[in-house]
Amino acid sequence: MTAETFNDLKIFSKPLTPDGAAVLMGFPGSGLVGTIALQYMVDQLEFELIGTMTSKFFPPLAMMNKGIINDPIRMYKKDNIAAIVADIPIHPMICYEVSNGILDWLEPFKPKEVLTIAGIITNEPEKRVFGVATTTEALKRIEEYTQILPVGSISGIASSILTECKIRGISAFGLLGETVNAPDPRSSAATIEVLNKMYNLALDVQPLLDQAVEIEQSMAKLSEEVQSSENAPKKDLPMYG
Amino acid sequence: MTAETFNDLKIFSKPLTPDGAAVLMGFPGSGLVGTIALQYMVDQLEFELIGTMTSKFFPPLAMMNKGIINDPIRMYKKDNIAAIVADIPIHPMICYEVSNGILDWLEPFKPKEVLTIAGIITNEPEKRVFGVATTTEALKRIEEYTQILPVGSISGIASSILTECKIRGISAFGLLGETVNAPDPRSSAATIEVLNKMYNLALDVQPLLDQAVEIEQSMAKLSEEVQSSENAPKKDLPMYG
Amino acid sequence: MTAETFNDLKIFSKPLTPDGAAVLMGFPGSGLVGTIALQYMVDQLEFELIGTMTSKFFPPLAMMNKGIINDPIRMYKKDNIAAIVADIPIHPMICYEVSNGILDWLEPFKPKEVLTIAGIITNEPEKRVFGVATTTEALKRIEEYTQILPVGSISGIASSILTECKIRGISAFGLLGETVNAPDPRSSAATIEVLNKMYNLALDVQPLLDQAVEIEQSMAKLSEEVQSSENAPKKDLPMYG
Amino acid sequence: MTAETFNDLKIFSKPLTPDGAAVLMGFPGSGLVGTIALQYMVDQLEFELIGTMTSKFFPPLAMMNKGIINDPIRMYKKDNIAAIVADIPIHPMICYEVSNGILDWLEPFKPKEVLTIAGIITNEPEKRVFGVATTTEALKRIEEYTQILPVGSISGIASSILTECKIRGISAFGLLGETVNAPDPRSSAATIEVLNKMYNLALDVQPLLDQAVEIEQSMAKLSEEVQSSENAPKKDLPMYG
Amino acid sequence: MTAETFNDLKIFSKPLTPDGAAVLMGFPGSGLVGTIALQYMVDQLEFELIGTMTSKFFPPLAMMNKGIINDPIRMYKKDNIAAIVADIPIHPMICYEVSNGILDWLEPFKPKEVLTIAGIITNEPEKRVFGVATTTEALKRIEEYTQILPVGSISGIASSILTECKIRGISAFGLLGETVNAPDPRSSAATIEVLNKMYNLALDVQPLLDQAVEIEQSMAKLSEEVQSSENAPKKDLPMYG
Repeated sequence: MTAETFNDLKIFSKPLTPDGAAVLMGFPGSGLVGTIALQYMVDQLEFELIGTMTSKFFPPLAMMNKGIINDPIRMYKKDNIAAIVADIPIHPMICYEVSNGILDWLEPFKPKEVLTIAGIITNEPEKRVFGVATTTEALKRIEEYTQILPVGSISGIASSILTECKIRGISAFGLLGETVNAPDPRSSAATIEVLNKMYNLALDVQPLLDQAVEIEQSMAKLSEEVQSSENAPKKDLPMYG
Repeated sequence: MTAETFNDLKIFSKPLTPDGAAVLMGFPGSGLVGTIALQYMVDQLEFELIGTMTSKFFPPLAMMNKGIINDPIRMYKKDNIAAIVADIPIHPMICYEVSNGILDWLEPFKPKEVLTIAGIITNEPEKRVFGVATTTEALKRIEEYTQILPVGSISGIASSILTECKIRGISAFGLLGETVNAPDPRSSAATIEVLNKMYNLALDVQPLLDQAVEIEQSMAKLSEEVQSSENAPKKDLPMYG
Repeated sequence: MTAETFNDLKIFSKPLTPDGAAVLMGFPGSGLVGTIALQYMVDQLEFELIGTMTSKFFPPLAMMNKGIINDPIRMYKKDNIAAIVADIPIHPMICYEVSNGILDWLEPFKPKEVLTIAGIITNEPEKRVFGVATTTEALKRIEEYTQILPVGSISGIASSILTECKIRGISAFGLLGETVNAPDPRSSAATIEVLNKMYNLALDVQPLLDQAVEIEQSMAKLSEEVQSSENAPKKDLPMYG
Repeated sequence: MTAETFNDLKIFSKPLTPDGAAVLMGFPGSGLVGTIALQYMVDQLEFELIGTMTSKFFPPLAMMNKGIINDPIRMYKKDNIAAIVADIPIHPMICYEVSNGILDWLEPFKPKEVLTIAGIITNEPEKRVFGVATTTEALKRIEEYTQILPVGSISGIASSILTECKIRGISAFGLLGETVNAPDPRSSAATIEVLNKMYNLALDVQPLLDQAVEIEQSMAKLSEEVQSSENAPKKDLPMYG
Repeated sequence: MTAETFNDLKIFSKPLTPDGAAVLMGFPGSGLVGTIALQYMVDQLEFELIGTMTSKFFPPLAMMNKGIINDPIRMYKKDNIAAIVADIPIHPMICYEVSNGILDWLEPFKPKEVLTIAGIITNEPEKRVFGVATTTEALKRIEEYTQILPVGSISGIASSILTECKIRGISAFGLLGETVNAPDPRSSAATIEVLNKMYNLALDVQPLLDQAVEIEQSMAKLSEEVQSSENAPKKDLPMYG
């Protein structure tokens, strides 16, 4: 595992397969749709963990999995699919540097396409998956599997990744899972159904749907704990400027 | 398409026609007057898309058009007119760097004149177009088409562009469309009428006026969606410092 | 007109007369006392506009004068008097850099003295002019024309200019016009009476007093307009982080 | 004592024993669990004070001990155990730089393992100690002494230290003492019981438990004093921008 | 008077006596205890003004004395005592750089000891003087003249100066005058009584006590003036971002 530095982003990783990999990305956002979907995919299909990245701009946060702390952002690969899964939110101020760093790292491997999964809040009960792309050709690849978003906007790291890909001439897609303002495995499952069609993954989302209730509960509990431990310093150390 | 860097602004573009182009600019601001007007112009007159620009200081935001994401700021040209159309607002803190970067890029092409379109909120029903210029000579060029603003001030990226042009000795105009605090195609139409006279564009604004209601609705809907997805991270990830 | 850079301040100007000029400065502050007084002086006595300055730290703002936009900060000269007049407020965070940049530019011309005009709010009806200086010798020069401020403090760019002059051994004066919290040509007129005595300007302030009411009205109107157009971006573009 | 600089962190220290020391760390956080526990350990077992560290990013704060001010962050050692004890909270914005600086300094000494103690607020009366680790092997070392945290997250400097260790391949543990939102020697005592088992310290925590009430009182009093002296500047010097 | 630069601190000063001077420091803080005490000392004992310091990080503020503006931070000396007296508060963000700059400048003169005077708010009527020191030996020097602070903390520039001295091995003391949240010459007088004993100054504090009421009044008046002129810009120039 070698380390490469891209401005303020440090990437430690094995090389990607240079034969035109599809690179799927999921960052925390509305409904944690992308993070939940891709973590489920790499766990179920036993992707290989090939790397991690850090930055002085990442928030100091580590998620646990059976007592083992995760790297905040992880790279996985299996056959010709790579996945980048993040546990930490990317602040709007650093989306540009993070998306640039990731693509500076990716470009030499000549990825076939980039796909980013995010959530979009509509406050409607459905779990539709909206699709956007960087070019008309790219749009064809997803128009039968998603509901094309005619007009609108996306923000955050997903928009930075898509914009950077468009400028660099890399085909890229955005899957926006209709979600609510809380961890939403059901929306993640809907986006996985699209991945199944695009990449013939044949992933069974039933377990994910079964876990939905349970996951929602533990996630909610976590939020509370984190929130209180986060607020603590300000409260019990008022002397801190 | 070559890339040039100006401080923190990266410009990817074909060269402008070096025979004294008129460069029209529209950035989001009150009423989105400039953005709506110039996007309508380049679409109707089929300008060629010649470039884009990015910066670490731009907000992470991408607008969609029939499912295809736009570059945040786009350069177009047709004959001896160039247009710079922005979807993203420019924060007051970076107006200086953005206007300097754009003019450092423009200057070698010896533009004949620069014109920037913005909105001015008057809370009056009329749709007058106020005019300002960098010099007395330049003012003559617009005084019959606009209502000269005797005293007052303009702020934001439009003022930075005009100030930079004045310092560099480039004739520049500001068209300020009287607007309200919401997307305002009617005000954009009024500014296009001025462009028609200045550049003999013979642009029919009737379609724009017809679309006004519809555009206002979709723009309003977008605002809501963006707002909720923007607020989401803070809400569903309280652990983020 | 040559350009010189002093840290983040860019100065474009013809040279000053190197025979010991008196340099008068007015920046927007309480009552806009200094800006109104010196702009009136340079207009009435037909000073020559010799330069301008810009900085990435200046707010993006341009004032209009009969439809022509002003440079935010302007340098004028006539005989052995120079004037620096600003339309834009200087944020406390950059007062040090601006005052240092200006004095780094001024010092080679060996100015005879520096005088800065500001406002001081006393909430009293009078229009007294208080005086401060960098040295006991300098104080003598103004003690008969002003009311010496025995104890107190001044803040903002005026204090930075005076402190920088004191450190560099340049005689400097501060004229603080008693004012209220609104554009105040009457206070400006009072400070001009002091300039008349110090520099034998024989400036008639009657026109200024006559314009007082009218100026107060247009300035008030401007404030409203600017305020609303300033607030606009935040309101009609909620997607901006 | 030599000084080494790591970005914005300055470390003044004697070298660690290069024979695989265990490095224990405690920073202020919820319940001050880590700081109280490790300060008690180094005092009781008479560790040698071997160094200190400073940074422009540390808050200006010094704790007193019998009239002598402490260095804000201190390094101690005894036999093959080293301890880093901090009196000052580490702001989320600098956790990355501080944890990197500390590990850049530690790595040449080839530490056997790193252990960080923090608090976790559960609002439950118990004083359980939760355990997390960087690898499955490391987890074995603590699973019989702590309650493994199946899912959840930790934030702040503790998470940065653990993440940095994981990336560098250094075995690391996190002990999270169940605590409340106030100085909590009882929780510290519970974490010391774990240290006793891991490092055969045979530390008697009874004195700590006896002092609990008294410490809680003086800490509470201190908080008030500090709070008032902290707020003072803003109040009695309104002229400060 | 030569100028030396220490990071962002510029010091203009004659050299100190290199024979082990005692350096006394007073910065504005709770009760302005240190500033009032040391300004009174240097005025009464006619210390020589030997220097000043400036920084881009200092707030733009100048105090007047009989119409003459003071340098914001002044250095004085007499025999083997030097004094650094500040009129401006030091923001927590720059305490580290200011204390480091001052000590980088001081160290070559091998000062015998450093003493900083600050205020501590206890909301009690007494005017006790609490003492802290960097080492046990140093503590002996003040334990009979002050009430040693057994436990607690100090914050702000005073804590940075003491921490920096401790790290550099320079004996240093902190005198904390018990004060209230307003200019407090009585507390300053109490700290001077300690200086009298430590340095045999035989300073009569009666005049200071007599002036107390009068000083309190003028200081209060000043606060109001400054406050209003400080707030002015925001109010009458709403266009400033």
